[in-house]
Amino acid sequence: MANQNAAPFSLSKLALLLPLLQGHDWQKTVEEQLAGGGYRYTLGRVGAMDLMKVVAAVETAAKRNRLIDEEQYREVHALYHAIIEAIQGVGRGTMQFGEILRTVGLTFAVVRGPMFPQGAEPGDWIAVCLYGTIGAPRKGFEHEVLGFGINHV
Amino acid sequence: MANQNAAPFSLSKLALLLPLLQGHDWQKTVEEQLAGGGYRYTLGRVGAMDLMKVVAAVETAAKRNRLIDEEQYREVHALYHAIIEAIQGVGRGTMQFGEILRTVGLTFAVVRGPMFPQGAEPGDWIAVCLYGTIGAPRKGFEHEVLGFGINHV
Amino acid sequence: MANQNAAPFSLSKLALLLPLLQGHDWQKTVEEQLAGGGYRYTLGRVGAMDLMKVVAAVETAAKRNRLIDEEQYREVHALYHAIIEAIQGVGRGTMQFGEILRTVGLTFAVVRGPMFPQGAEPGDWIAVCLYGTIGAPRKGFEHEVLGFGINHV
Amino acid sequence: MANQNAAPFSLSKLALLLPLLQGHDWQKTVEEQLAGGGYRYTLGRVGAMDLMKVVAAVETAAKRNRLIDEEQYREVHALYHAIIEAIQGVGRGTMQFGEILRTVGLTFAVVRGPMFPQGAEPGDWIAVCLYGTIGAPRKGFEHEVLGFGINHV
Amino acid sequence: MANQNAAPFSLSKLALLLPLLQGHDWQKTVEEQLAGGGYRYTLGRVGAMDLMKVVAAVETAAKRNRLIDEEQYREVHALYHAIIEAIQGVGRGTMQFGEILRTVGLTFAVVRGPMFPQGAEPGDWIAVCLYGTIGAPRKGFEHEVLGFGINHV
Amino acid sequence: MANQNAAPFSLSKLALLLPLLQGHDWQKTVEEQLAGGGYRYTLGRVGAMDLMKVVAAVETAAKRNRLIDEEQYREVHALYHAIIEAIQGVGRGTMQFGEILRTVGLTFAVVRGPMFPQGAEPGDWIAVCLYGTIGAPRKGFEHEVLGFGINHV
Ligand SMILES: [Mg+2]
Ligand SMILES: [Mg+2]
Ligand SMILES: [Mg+2]
Ligand SMILES: [Mg+2]
Ligand SMILES: [Mg+2]
Ligand SMILES: [Mg+2]
Repeated sequence: MANQNAAPFSLSKLALLLPLLQGHDWQKTVEEQLAGGGYRYTLGRVGAMDLMKVVAAVETAAKRNRLIDEEQYREVHALYHAIIEAIQGVGRGTMQFGEILRTVGLTFAVVRGPMFPQGAEPGDWIAVCLYGTIGAPRKGFEHEVLGFGINHV
Repeated sequence: MANQNAAPFSLSKLALLLPLLQGHDWQKTVEEQLAGGGYRYTLGRVGAMDLMKVVAAVETAAKRNRLIDEEQYREVHALYHAIIEAIQGVGRGTMQFGEILRTVGLTFAVVRGPMFPQGAEPGDWIAVCLYGTIGAPRKGFEHEVLGFGINHV
Repeated sequence: MANQNAAPFSLSKLALLLPLLQGHDWQKTVEEQLAGGGYRYTLGRVGAMDLMKVVAAVETAAKRNRLIDEEQYREVHALYHAIIEAIQGVGRGTMQFGEILRTVGLTFAVVRGPMFPQGAEPGDWIAVCLYGTIGAPRKGFEHEVLGFGINHV
Repeated sequence: MANQNAAPFSLSKLALLLPLLQGHDWQKTVEEQLAGGGYRYTLGRVGAMDLMKVVAAVETAAKRNRLIDEEQYREVHALYHAIIEAIQGVGRGTMQFGEILRTVGLTFAVVRGPMFPQGAEPGDWIAVCLYGTIGAPRKGFEHEVLGFGINHV
Repeated sequence: MANQNAAPFSLSKLALLLPLLQGHDWQKTVEEQLAGGGYRYTLGRVGAMDLMKVVAAVETAAKRNRLIDEEQYREVHALYHAIIEAIQGVGRGTMQFGEILRTVGLTFAVVRGPMFPQGAEPGDWIAVCLYGTIGAPRKGFEHEVLGFGINHV
Repeated sequence: MANQNAAPFSLSKLALLLPLLQGHDWQKTVEEQLAGGGYRYTLGRVGAMDLMKVVAAVETAAKRNRLIDEEQYREVHALYHAIIEAIQGVGRGTMQFGEILRTVGLTFAVVRGPMFPQGAEPGDWIAVCLYGTIGAPRKGFEHEVLGFGINHV
């Protein structure tokens, strides 16, 4: 057993590690903590030059996996602003992809639950992590990128 | 032994995982890969309301640990823009901390080397990860944040 | 008679109140002050995911109602920058609607004249107010928004 | 009685009209609707070249008047982002005042409650309106400005 | 005589060439065209980590040299926005210098007059050019930069 | 012979003057210095409402004229960020053209080589200058604009 004596990860670290460790055998530990901590989460992929598709992919995955109640505008609003914040980290200065001739290939995670596993404060938070590549629309002409956003639900 | 059959991490993942896993027993594996891949790196901490201090702390640590040749402007320039990109992810929309009454407590990593451990392409890249908290200048009134930047050296 | 002892509104307040009070019986008073102060103004509506349509709708309405002389570039330029400023208030951080999967339904006012009804300073100013809703392209999943811009003509 | 047959104002309109109508006899009607709708609100003033003072003034007034529970980070977080959005409308492109040699004199309103007076959706929203002048630090060398932000609490 | 058969420069080109050609013998030709075209202009220098000093230096030079009537707010407003636009070109993404540990050494020109020497359209325009270096506060660790803004007066 | 006793221009000045002096007889001197200093350069034109076309036009011209090795991602990356910086100067606050109903007609120059003709520091820099007009999609309803970016290769 690997991380016996390590403290459990926070909501944000879980959201960050989930796409970062995809395909790595540590990911199982992250998923165990997500399940054990009562977190709701989703992991997906989206590749696009069109920013709108990125927003839509994350939103749709979060709704389909019941991370938010899609009939409550305030929950949709909370998720939306977390997504926008994550995109700002991906864009680094401007939220534009295709318009400035760059494309993204992103793995995304959305996690909802208490900020800390043993959190005493009431109420959920929702974190969005977008990790992948950004660059020219040509294989290998890209570098990695990560954007992270979080909001109270 | 944990991640036997996992592929080695890229430069960017190493830079991202280093501060995320601080204090966790997985960090040793990350450090082993950094050493084994011939990467130069540094891990440090800075807390501030003053953005200038964040830039200076990362720059100083990278120079002192010989990640860049501080006598070559082009190396300083490469690092500088990577830091600014990382700060954009932390700021999410505006690079301001104290001016808008928020403070940051950040662990930072800077990693220099080939983009991939077995990279065939010549030339180094430098990645900067800032991970920590942002919020009101009051303990517990903050959430996590992560910014990532990368540049060719 | 309602606001007997109140000072007349400034150009900016008139532009702000016109869309805010649409359908309210106070609007008549606002329109009386607009007419009495020699102001030229227009009130219109535009709903779009496409930012370009918002700019075009306001510009077209202002030209058609002779708020600016559309044969003089400097007048067109003055209006244009006032519109852009107003859109920045609507966008709050980024001037994007459809690209980030949000739609707007806006009532807009453009008012031209002296900054204050009894203004002694020569020369006109032009103010643009955009008021309405912004949100997901789904009825009720939106909140209100207001952007305001002003320029010398 | 003036606006007998007008529909009651939304939370956002109340927040917008409160500083816009300061000193005008319509303001009493706005305050009656605020009280009658069970809204919590505050109206204050701040003049500064220093952005931090604007954030602090609004935050302090909202806490002192119990619009938010200052012991709950999620409530503080909700207010904070609403303030930042409002400042973006004031800054129109950049959240800077003194740094670019401009000063603001603002009347601000913060309103908390349901989005609409007869709102059926559960949960509160908090709206921030900043209205006043921006310009050179010289009397009369300024124009009006308005910024508006809103968030779910 | 050099540029016999070249068309005279526009207002914008004159503003751009003036600091670019400082110390070069072509500058005399530029100054002759400025004088011959009835343009009012000023050329100055400012070095700073503090953005406010840059704005102030350009504003002060323009007022002292009577490019604008400093008693008319609309003229001050026109100049102000032209300066801000020029600074955006210098900052490339953010209007910050010292906050992000960079310093500027700028030569600036402000030119007022018709957009084109034989301009038929009534009314003046004012153009601001900032040219110089930006970089670390260490000699030689900087690169060149140019920002340009223009507005109707 | 005109500028006998003037110091040769820097890489950045050459990039700036090349489009500014197009059609002027001084341009020959600029081209002589470019050739004499061992610089690689290209001069082109692009008119568009679509930002992507501007990025593509500059990138394509630089590749076709062998300013960068298009098989090396780090060279493509260096050029890309220089282009983006130049566009920020053109956009002054937002990198949008058609979306906000403005069109650009740009002459662009890309220059690669040492920062200074007698530069002792090893390694090339690449500078991008975009000069032309921006405005409404109607002849004469536009003003001049210049954006400049530079990066280490
Ligand atoms: Mg936050
Ligand atoms: Mg990059
Ligand atoms: Mg203004
Ligand atoms: Mg919102
Ligand atoms: Mg303009
Ligand atoms: Mg640079």
